[in-house]
Amino acid sequence: MSDPVTRRLEAAVADVAGMTDGALADYIPQLATVDPGRVGLAMAAVSGRVYRAGDDQAFTIQSVSKPFVHALALAEHGLDAVLARVGVEPSGQAFDAVSLEPGSGRPANPMINAGALVVTALVSADAPERRPERILAGLGAFAGRPLTVDEATYASELATSDHNRGLAHLVRAGGALQGPVEEVVAHYVAQCSVLVTVDDLAVMAATLANGGVNPVTGERVVGEREAAVALAVMATCGMYDASGRWLVRVGLPAKSGVSGCVVAASPGQFGVAAFSPPVDSYGNSVRGVAALERLSREFELDLVGHPGLTAPPVAARRAQDGAVVLELQGELDLAAAEEVLHELRGLPPVRRVVLDAGRVTRMRPVAARLLDAALDDLRAAGVDAGLTRLR
Amino acid sequence: MSDPVTRRLEAAVADVAGMTDGALADYIPQLATVDPGRVGLAMAAVSGRVYRAGDDQAFTIQSVSKPFVHALALAEHGLDAVLARVGVEPSGQAFDAVSLEPGSGRPANPMINAGALVVTALVSADAPERRPERILAGLGAFAGRPLTVDEATYASELATSDHNRGLAHLVRAGGALQGPVEEVVAHYVAQCSVLVTVDDLAVMAATLANGGVNPVTGERVVGEREAAVALAVMATCGMYDASGRWLVRVGLPAKSGVSGCVVAASPGQFGVAAFSPPVDSYGNSVRGVAALERLSREFELDLVGHPGLTAPPVAARRAQDGAVVLELQGELDLAAAEEVLHELRGLPPVRRVVLDAGRVTRMRPVAARLLDAALDDLRAAGVDAGLTRLR
Amino acid sequence: MSDPVTRRLEAAVADVAGMTDGALADYIPQLATVDPGRVGLAMAAVSGRVYRAGDDQAFTIQSVSKPFVHALALAEHGLDAVLARVGVEPSGQAFDAVSLEPGSGRPANPMINAGALVVTALVSADAPERRPERILAGLGAFAGRPLTVDEATYASELATSDHNRGLAHLVRAGGALQGPVEEVVAHYVAQCSVLVTVDDLAVMAATLANGGVNPVTGERVVGEREAAVALAVMATCGMYDASGRWLVRVGLPAKSGVSGCVVAASPGQFGVAAFSPPVDSYGNSVRGVAALERLSREFELDLVGHPGLTAPPVAARRAQDGAVVLELQGELDLAAAEEVLHELRGLPPVRRVVLDAGRVTRMRPVAARLLDAALDDLRAAGVDAGLTRLR
Amino acid sequence: MSDPVTRRLEAAVADVAGMTDGALADYIPQLATVDPGRVGLAMAAVSGRVYRAGDDQAFTIQSVSKPFVHALALAEHGLDAVLARVGVEPSGQAFDAVSLEPGSGRPANPMINAGALVVTALVSADAPERRPERILAGLGAFAGRPLTVDEATYASELATSDHNRGLAHLVRAGGALQGPVEEVVAHYVAQCSVLVTVDDLAVMAATLANGGVNPVTGERVVGEREAAVALAVMATCGMYDASGRWLVRVGLPAKSGVSGCVVAASPGQFGVAAFSPPVDSYGNSVRGVAALERLSREFELDLVGHPGLTAPPVAARRAQDGAVVLELQGELDLAAAEEVLHELRGLPPVRRVVLDAGRVTRMRPVAARLLDAALDDLRAAGVDAGLTRLR
Repeated sequence: MSDPVTRRLEAAVADVAGMTDGALADYIPQLATVDPGRVGLAMAAVSGRVYRAGDDQAFTIQSVSKPFVHALALAEHGLDAVLARVGVEPSGQAFDAVSLEPGSGRPANPMINAGALVVTALVSADAPERRPERILAGLGAFAGRPLTVDEATYASELATSDHNRGLAHLVRAGGALQGPVEEVVAHYVAQCSVLVTVDDLAVMAATLANGGVNPVTGERVVGEREAAVALAVMATCGMYDASGRWLVRVGLPAKSGVSGCVVAASPGQFGVAAFSPPVDSYGNSVRGVAALERLSREFELDLVGHPGLTAPPVAARRAQDGAVVLELQGELDLAAAEEVLHELRGLPPVRRVVLDAGRVTRMRPVAARLLDAALDDLRAAGVDAGLTRLR
Repeated sequence: MSDPVTRRLEAAVADVAGMTDGALADYIPQLATVDPGRVGLAMAAVSGRVYRAGDDQAFTIQSVSKPFVHALALAEHGLDAVLARVGVEPSGQAFDAVSLEPGSGRPANPMINAGALVVTALVSADAPERRPERILAGLGAFAGRPLTVDEATYASELATSDHNRGLAHLVRAGGALQGPVEEVVAHYVAQCSVLVTVDDLAVMAATLANGGVNPVTGERVVGEREAAVALAVMATCGMYDASGRWLVRVGLPAKSGVSGCVVAASPGQFGVAAFSPPVDSYGNSVRGVAALERLSREFELDLVGHPGLTAPPVAARRAQDGAVVLELQGELDLAAAEEVLHELRGLPPVRRVVLDAGRVTRMRPVAARLLDAALDDLRAAGVDAGLTRLR
Repeated sequence: MSDPVTRRLEAAVADVAGMTDGALADYIPQLATVDPGRVGLAMAAVSGRVYRAGDDQAFTIQSVSKPFVHALALAEHGLDAVLARVGVEPSGQAFDAVSLEPGSGRPANPMINAGALVVTALVSADAPERRPERILAGLGAFAGRPLTVDEATYASELATSDHNRGLAHLVRAGGALQGPVEEVVAHYVAQCSVLVTVDDLAVMAATLANGGVNPVTGERVVGEREAAVALAVMATCGMYDASGRWLVRVGLPAKSGVSGCVVAASPGQFGVAAFSPPVDSYGNSVRGVAALERLSREFELDLVGHPGLTAPPVAARRAQDGAVVLELQGELDLAAAEEVLHELRGLPPVRRVVLDAGRVTRMRPVAARLLDAALDDLRAAGVDAGLTRLR
Repeated sequence: MSDPVTRRLEAAVADVAGMTDGALADYIPQLATVDPGRVGLAMAAVSGRVYRAGDDQAFTIQSVSKPFVHALALAEHGLDAVLARVGVEPSGQAFDAVSLEPGSGRPANPMINAGALVVTALVSADAPERRPERILAGLGAFAGRPLTVDEATYASELATSDHNRGLAHLVRAGGALQGPVEEVVAHYVAQCSVLVTVDDLAVMAATLANGGVNPVTGERVVGEREAAVALAVMATCGMYDASGRWLVRVGLPAKSGVSGCVVAASPGQFGVAAFSPPVDSYGNSVRGVAALERLSREFELDLVGHPGLTAPPVAARRAQDGAVVLELQGELDLAAAEEVLHELRGLPPVRRVVLDAGRVTRMRPVAARLLDAALDDLRAAGVDAGLTRLR
């Protein structure tokens, strides 16, 4: 029998398998040849372990490549330089909208095609001849294994890329894009034609969730800041003009691709990915969205939901060797630190105070700084104060 | 000397006080009469404690009322009924855009004025004559004290509300709004003219962060689900057409008002609020945005940022009375539960397994369910397995 | 047997009577109660004679009132003052589009509802209480008989005018409209509810075609300039977002109303009007458009079409009493005058030149000025030159 | 001394020469190198005579090529086939707007670049390799002399045509355009780089005004219908988003080019052209627009203006040889024919009726048909009736 996590994934796959809404995307001929009955669902924990139910075969990544290549471009150029070329505002429009900012000519965001083309061109900007290899290597680093391009889809998509060529020329005319259009479109189409499995996508999303470090290989792919920016943009723009509804229903940064794949990431926790080819009118996988909506509820992944009650950060207060010892526990973030500070302020006059962090499971820097400041205040008042792991 | 939290608020106020960009909103005459030098900043923890630096005087809440009244409407009608009248998609447009969905006539979201008018009309829908009192009471419940309407601003704003009247008629023509336009506009303008302080706003935001329960009074104002939806909509649409940039820079659900106030909420942690009258071209307080951007960095409030390393959920494994005891610690969410399950799978054959949750500071339901399932699996395999707080 | 003109109207009515496309407009409840089988067609010559086939009963004028009230507003305020409030550019959008010019808040043109509301408010601007009476009198002067408002339609339309109220508030917020919205909307709806027949509309259009003078009553209703501006705006914006197609197919300034009426005007020649209730998706009468398209072809009314060959303006040249006499004929406009000037330049040296205008049927001022200038040149060269009607 | 027509052109040039508004278009580098002080104005009568004042040097035709190439495409494919690819509706937008019709992907009209590209590709559609030569020959036939391409402008413009390439790809993606984008853009840019003088443009416009026959060479370039459609589209869309204002102020179908040229056509009368490089924000020549506005007023060219009084079409009625003779005169169009029919109906009973058309200067087919019908009616009633030129 499979483990409890896998069982939940299996239940979700079974739950959505019978859905018959949606249709195969047909504007890329190669996508219309796939078996519409395929359903796969995977989850990769920041522990590096991957769980999956259903389909384990490859498909082309399509637009799900966008946030990862965005992160690569951010890593290469920094946020400000990338922001100068492509915005981060939801456009309220479809994936193929032109949506260029008047004046600057910047595409609204990197999730619509116009913006994604600009972002692709920012990767290996100084050596465009190495760009395809760099993007493939970057996506492979996110996935934790070497990836390849599906040549048939690449050829099929390149032959029908007039809309993308049009967008590229328009952004080039506006100054947001440099370099030959045909080259950028070819690189972008190649990026969309990379073959991945739901396992790969789950690991890729988990890498963003894990602050840019691939939890399977341990390789740092991008910095924490780049991973956070990529997730923020996914949160507002990842599901095209259904992004708001998605955040309300699922509550996670996500991105969909017209091949029928969807990824979502829970910062510090998990990456999840679903695949099932039929897509709705927004270009989002019908079964994939339903499966992730179910998982989000079941696994309490909602980013803006309330996390529930927590034990107090001061587990106990005891006198020991003439000192007052506060036993701290659990995760110390801002809220917990504030609690501890409050306790310290409420202490009767004492000569010595010890904060025992032996049971603290996570000490966020803000908590460390606030506790340090409070201890400094005590010391300034003549109290012998310190933070220690007694055990 | 003030405490470390207040000191950081004071530093943020001092940091932004010298900024001279922005201008007083002048389309509401009364707003143009305020002292542009005022700066206030407050934070309310889910513990119920409030910290503040700078200005403690009242101002009108303006658009910051929108997410709270949205939550009240959600509580009265449920998500689906509200969604039928107003969407949750970012419009990529300014606060006064028409942005009605073709076909349904639904405003794009409740943060633009067209949508906010519809939401206001949904409060006390069956007894509109009691709506102003209901909204005032609701906002007061969020703030934890009785609030009042600034009659001068109300009169000034009502006299210059042609744009809102126009929007209201258009949404009424489209079917999204019922009831007399003049009544709805008056109620909406009254809601915008409610007097609040930064302390009030911080507590209001903390109430959403706290799952709908006011952390100062302990009163449940709205349900957890409504609070989460309100935060999700703030995340994508709260800062008008600068919402994406905000999520990238600050990373928290937020809402701004043209009087110069801004609120943001960190789920499960804090509500923060800033006030300083001069606003930028988006209608967002220049100093308020800068102060919250600084606080977000300093207090690590970014929702999509990586939370940093955490201690393993299994603190220790020991043999005791013929059983294997796994000592669990810290917050048990999905990621932690997955770790524990992995440990259980890796145990050598034993007769008895005990999960000791004595040091667990938060047990999320998903973790409880997964641990239960794993223990069931063990018991089905003949192992005596249980979860206990030994101490 | 009817006369040849009426027979052609009858044939056109018979030709379109069988068309079954289109549907009754239903957004104004009263309009949905009319007999969809009605078809009427009328033509009013600038001679003042009116020809008609088919339906002679009254219907409400609806948007066909717009160009006539526009002309009344132009007569009251002049072109520049009206242009400051409402533009004359085609919006490429539907009749109910908002289409306000960024910055000025001006509606795009007076044929969309937003612009028509502004125009209505400009009539009797100093005494709005007399506006309905003034508009009714003005429309009656165009039609050549007293008109009345259909109270049932007025009441029905006023009760469902939320969209117009919305537009009015928005343009008022933008500054293009003054005065109470409810008053303007009521006046506008009253103007739309005026009862007319196809005969009335044909005479109204003929009045614009006749330079502002009603050809039946001889009354000057508006100035030549106002009539020309009204026709120019009809040419570019009269048929909503089918205006370009109309100008290509029919080639005349025109205006349609959602009750199923259409008018068109051929400057200097005729006004035509059709009525048949079912309208297409643009809000244009299906049979009315077809009938006018047929009439335009058959009656060669196309404004931009080539008028065909004309006899030379110099019918003959003869010597008489020692002078060279040029016998002029027909209509002398710029092209004809240029021909005459060319003939004069080609004359051999003579002592006396006479231009005999006895057979000239129309002498446009430009022709008179050019001939005068040429005769002055001759006289300066010592030639005895003159223009005379010898008979 | 020059002739009176030329003197008026000279006065107009002198009148506008001092205007200093506007700026050289700089998005095509080559255009920015021209002398901004140049002013030229020309008029070509349908007689074939050309008048000019000021600059007689060549410049590139730019967008003024659009209506002429549109006429060529109409001649090659017919109206319906061209309409299937590009609409005729004003877009209310700038020349470089995307403005594709949802669904069909058709550009709004042939005057915006997206539409012009489609139209260019329709010329010599079966043999694109001969397209540049065909367009050059067609434009030359309109102008009445062989034209050439300015290679420097062609190269400069082709190098900066990203926006046009973008538009071409988008319309190709939508299906409105076939053929390689690079080829179409090159052909379009070549068409825009054709060198013309104001004399050329005046003759080209006169050819449209003359029903498609070049009045100088006598060559039929396009059919009457194609010329009329080209003029109709110029009337609604020719001056970009200032088209409505133009029709109100000038009243003629017109087209402007960013090099500073403008043409206008008065059907059956004249073509006029102006050239002066500085353009306004719409891309229309400041001095050119002013000069044509002045000419339109002075030469009474307004298409929708009232033509003024005309003599009655029945000059006299007399008894001759037992018959009633009606002496007709001037231009017989629909209005005049209606008058004659009215006279015939008013005759006392007679045995014989003669319509004497000896002084008729133009008999439009509709008039001939109506008179024939009336005479048939008389004959059916036993009257001996006929139309004759007695002299």
